[in-house]
Amino acid sequence: MTQKPTIRARHPIADTGIFTIEELDLEFANGVKRSYQRLVGSERGAVLVIPILGDDTLLLIREYTAGMNRYELAFPKGSVDVGEQPLDAANRELQEEVGYAARQLRLLTSMTIAPGYLYHTTHIVMARNLYPQRLPGDEPEPIEVVPWKIGDYRRLLERPDFTESRSIAGLYIIRDILMGPGNS
Amino acid sequence: MTQKPTIRARHPIADTGIFTIEELDLEFANGVKRSYQRLVGSERGAVLVIPILGDDTLLLIREYTAGMNRYELAFPKGSVDVGEQPLDAANRELQEEVGYAARQLRLLTSMTIAPGYLYHTTHIVMARNLYPQRLPGDEPEPIEVVPWKIGDYRRLLERPDFTESRSIAGLYIIRDILMGPGNS
Repeated sequence: MTQKPTIRARHPIADTGIFTIEELDLEFANGVKRSYQRLVGSERGAVLVIPILGDDTLLLIREYTAGMNRYELAFPKGSVDVGEQPLDAANRELQEEVGYAARQLRLLTSMTIAPGYLYHTTHIVMARNLYPQRLPGDEPEPIEVVPWKIGDYRRLLERPDFTESRSIAGLYIIRDILMGPGNS
Repeated sequence: MTQKPTIRARHPIADTGIFTIEELDLEFANGVKRSYQRLVGSERGAVLVIPILGDDTLLLIREYTAGMNRYELAFPKGSVDVGEQPLDAANRELQEEVGYAARQLRLLTSMTIAPGYLYHTTHIVMARNLYPQRLPGDEPEPIEVVPWKIGDYRRLLERPDFTESRSIAGLYIIRDILMGPGNS
């Protein structure tokens, strides 16, 4: 196992109110020195919620994404607030974005999205035993909720607006849980 | 279908040499106005390569990731250079990071990673019919290449250093291709 590089210095580079960027001066175990910039997200991370209505219906949302400047279909997600646990954040986002709460929440795994240059973790949470309950969100326009039968997952993967890698990974994970890797 | 918001203005916010951030002033179809910051990546995007040695062995790399400040196991990836096609970029990254070239390259799909605040696309490329061939890379220390039998994919998913969402999604996609969704 290689020994981790030593961080010789950390410099703040930019803080835009939304994005915080810092530079790390590193010395690798072989003596090579390099500086890298990285985007520093919250220690608390984010949640991606996979809501299952009944036994076989996923609830997706379709909303405008400013990064790509287009509408995207994906599982609901959001940041974990101060003092909040990931499962509570998942249940809150579910109520804000989908209009349901869950009696059963389970952390399936945690993912990174660009570990080379982004400090960020997303907790993937399965939500079941849903009941209608809404919390006010801060979206500029109503979010469209799109129900999707798990048996029809291939057609979802083929959609040009279902591109977000955490949602794609989450779909495969939930397909194996609901259908079994041998029953699809 | 909701009508896409109109971009009323775009302002550069920060450019660190590595990261470019801009602000979009948007007006939604319902008249609501919002400003969003986004990180603007390259139009050319990136590639993630899934190299398959023989019929059943994936080639992963283990390298230090500055964003997370730890070693991560993942499929090789990198940016598409100016004038390069995604399949050529995939073959170049494969030679630089893994020490193989591919006679067969196939674009499987394209993904985003954080469409809400990041303009970025990664092309997922399957590489087969490999032969040893190395191009010099720019890594600060040698990259460890980790072969992994596809039949053992569950153990890979359980590893605490296999967290990157594009690699997880890519692993499921290649599992279905190599083993079939009904043979795992």
